[in-house]
Amino acid sequence: MTLKLKTVTYSNAYIDLSREELLEQVSQVMSDKRFTHVKGVEQAALELAERYGANLEQVSIAALLHDFAKEQSDEEMRDIIISENMDLELLQYGNNIWHGPVGAVVVRNQFSIQDQDILDAIRHHTVGSPNMGIVEQIIYLADYIEPNRTFKGVDKARKLAENDMTKGIAYATLKTLKHLLNENVKIYPKAIETYNAWVVQKQEELHD
Amino acid sequence: MTLKLKTVTYSNAYIDLSREELLEQVSQVMSDKRFTHVKGVEQAALELAERYGANLEQVSIAALLHDFAKEQSDEEMRDIIISENMDLELLQYGNNIWHGPVGAVVVRNQFSIQDQDILDAIRHHTVGSPNMGIVEQIIYLADYIEPNRTFKGVDKARKLAENDMTKGIAYATLKTLKHLLNENVKIYPKAIETYNAWVVQKQEELHD
Repeated sequence: MTLKLKTVTYSNAYIDLSREELLEQVSQVMSDKRFTHVKGVEQAALELAERYGANLEQVSIAALLHDFAKEQSDEEMRDIIISENMDLELLQYGNNIWHGPVGAVVVRNQFSIQDQDILDAIRHHTVGSPNMGIVEQIIYLADYIEPNRTFKGVDKARKLAENDMTKGIAYATLKTLKHLLNENVKIYPKAIETYNAWVVQKQEELHD
Repeated sequence: MTLKLKTVTYSNAYIDLSREELLEQVSQVMSDKRFTHVKGVEQAALELAERYGANLEQVSIAALLHDFAKEQSDEEMRDIIISENMDLELLQYGNNIWHGPVGAVVVRNQFSIQDQDILDAIRHHTVGSPNMGIVEQIIYLADYIEPNRTFKGVDKARKLAENDMTKGIAYATLKTLKHLLNENVKIYPKAIETYNAWVVQKQEELHD
């Protein structure tokens, strides 16, 4: 990570706010600790976007909004899952699985965001998805490697991400699943679809 | 395990064959090595059935037939998955996932077995299921701990199985998933439903 903070000027193509106005609104719905994390995700995401030639504005907006719903109550989230006709299997899980798909709906409604790349990146940032576009990939991985993360293996993930997004995503996915199994935590079956695509299938393609 | 081989006399309530006739038919559709495994599963299953008061005849039949379809060709298996209106997601997996559900159909047709406990035990013996009855539980676990198994951890699984079926199933499920992740092998998402039920939910209930 460079020491100088990265920034980007918004064009109003995706959201009717400046980056500074969006930062202000984001800061109002979460703890200081989470806001620090969100800003870290944006920095990591902008670095990946520059490296891999993604749209900096989409990436910045998706990063700043990825955890927008995380501190909503379980009751609010359940209401949205039901009223938006989401997969009802979600109801058997909790905040950690909900805040991605619920967050995509909340930010679409609250900020009139229509861009599917941004919404999908928010929707899939925790569980991933078999077919992630570059913005989704960047947010999924930036959430894992952002500068405030200190867990064992994060430096390896950062190195992989710098050189090969697919390998970085595979590493993050595999490590996360192993951690959940070791902790005997419930796993959302769609996370296995991400594993099957990114750890098994895409790696087989690489070795073909 | 006792040294004396366990046996059971069939009543014709479940299958129109004696145990010896069934053994003969099973031996004809598989390699010697697999037949030895199948007889080991029957022994382990009968021991568990005696310990936990399950029906010895159901358990013997399910054990002897659990791998009945395993050496069928991929083409035959695909045909059955499609013609029997099974979950088409199965087609993305292979023999190791198919031979349970396909085997249940094959033995139902070939031996006119109607008993749902036996058919479910064959159907779910590899992947498990969130709600397994005692016959299903015994075949799932016996397949893991039968006397010919020598992998690291099998003795712990045997000890757990002797004392607590739920803990034995949880251990086998967790170890299998970790092994698949370590080997980067594709995972059938229903295996995660088994994990969520037996490793997470039932263990939480035990600690309540």
